[in-house]
Amino acid sequence: MNQFETPVFANVQEHRLACRKGQYSGPTGGVIPENVLCNLVVLPQSEAYDFLVYCMRNPKPCPVIEVFDPGDPISKFAAPGADMRTDLSRYAVSRFGESQGTCTDITELWAQDSVALLMGSSLTFDHALQRAGVKASPEVWVLKTSIQTQKAGRFSGPLIVTMRWMTSTQAIIATQLTARFAWNHGSPIHIGDPADIGADLEQPIWGKPVDEIPKGIVPVFWACGVTPQFTAESAKPSLMITHAPSHGFITDLKADQYCLP
Amino acid sequence: MNQFETPVFANVQEHRLACRKGQYSGPTGGVIPENVLCNLVVLPQSEAYDFLVYCMRNPKPCPVIEVFDPGDPISKFAAPGADMRTDLSRYAVSRFGESQGTCTDITELWAQDSVALLMGSSLTFDHALQRAGVKASPEVWVLKTSIQTQKAGRFSGPLIVTMRWMTSTQAIIATQLTARFAWNHGSPIHIGDPADIGADLEQPIWGKPVDEIPKGIVPVFWACGVTPQFTAESAKPSLMITHAPSHGFITDLKADQYCLP
Repeated sequence: MNQFETPVFANVQEHRLACRKGQYSGPTGGVIPENVLCNLVVLPQSEAYDFLVYCMRNPKPCPVIEVFDPGDPISKFAAPGADMRTDLSRYAVSRFGESQGTCTDITELWAQDSVALLMGSSLTFDHALQRAGVKASPEVWVLKTSIQTQKAGRFSGPLIVTMRWMTSTQAIIATQLTARFAWNHGSPIHIGDPADIGADLEQPIWGKPVDEIPKGIVPVFWACGVTPQFTAESAKPSLMITHAPSHGFITDLKADQYCLP
Repeated sequence: MNQFETPVFANVQEHRLACRKGQYSGPTGGVIPENVLCNLVVLPQSEAYDFLVYCMRNPKPCPVIEVFDPGDPISKFAAPGADMRTDLSRYAVSRFGESQGTCTDITELWAQDSVALLMGSSLTFDHALQRAGVKASPEVWVLKTSIQTQKAGRFSGPLIVTMRWMTSTQAIIATQLTARFAWNHGSPIHIGDPADIGADLEQPIWGKPVDEIPKGIVPVFWACGVTPQFTAESAKPSLMITHAPSHGFITDLKADQYCLP
């Protein structure tokens, strides 16, 4: 698999085929930067109703782009023909809220009543931000906040956010620009002091702990697609399959077209 | 009820109380013009899953603002405390797709498994359009198109649209402005010749038949909340309760705040 360490795929189909054949199992951020990147959630249909309501009540962390028919793993809208069982580079599996590790193919786990959902990811707008002159944050942190999401059935939990670092001028541009990407978490939910939203920089879910925010830097926070995975800890669905962190599904949708004008 | 023929309510609570007491049963467009107006759909939970998916697949005609817990008629988000059984001025009832007429109270029809949904209405942005200098259309037509919505379970059918008449300059302003009102159908789906989307002006669902479009006038079309009611003709749910046409639910949400910047 060495030839894919710096993956350069001619197009999204080639990337998907490499995933399907087990030839690529790496992260997907920036692999096809102009396409919408999605978070995947697969649940048994009996648990999917509450989850759909949870998404509708929390559109910022859970912006649904496609809901699949029960038992049907093939995309009709976001990437017609793509197979959710094989076309992601890596999956994360949990049973009753307990992690079962990751794998690169979920064909064996797929059931007649499996319902797949694709949700927008903020990794989608990173490319647009760079084109707008907002340099990539040195790191993207994932943090838990003290903000509670709106519960639905057994699905409840804190809002998880991504944090990016930038100058104040860049924060303004980033706010304007990401507001257009309504299906990829949209505008920030907070700018400034992490403590205001109960985010602890010393205990990030993802990323290195931060002692001090550098001078002249403004932390900007967006609702994060890790939120629904986190709620699985409270809902404990019998089986939940998601993309592995940073291993989202790359759709056929162009980010600059699947947004508001 | 004569005193309400030109209803002037001090605020939305007063209007809602008048509905609850049976003192107001008239149309609600423009009654509290600055508040978000919603379409109501009530279904048994067994039919609600497919309907939620239908809404997610068709966000332009079916922009969900609130999903209620099964059996709970009291709003928590859009109008905390409001009762969906009594606080609309008039309801439309259908069983297995057959109209059962209208009524002003659905307390007797409400069941343990009733699920209510509130969806944005384009009547919400009429006030904003007027403030932006786009005069109210002499009439608002409701028309069937030849565009098919994305089906979910038994829910399928044509996209229904509202048509407003304006000048070309106003059509540009209206496009810019309504794009911000993403939860009230958002930007138009078409501008220009009705035939392009299979809309027959001689057979509107609502409004007077049109022989000829006046010179200098551009028809502008928005996805319409009548779409899901129309799909009931194909889905034939055992019981479906909606607001009666033009008798939507007035929320506490301010239209100028519940939109994109």
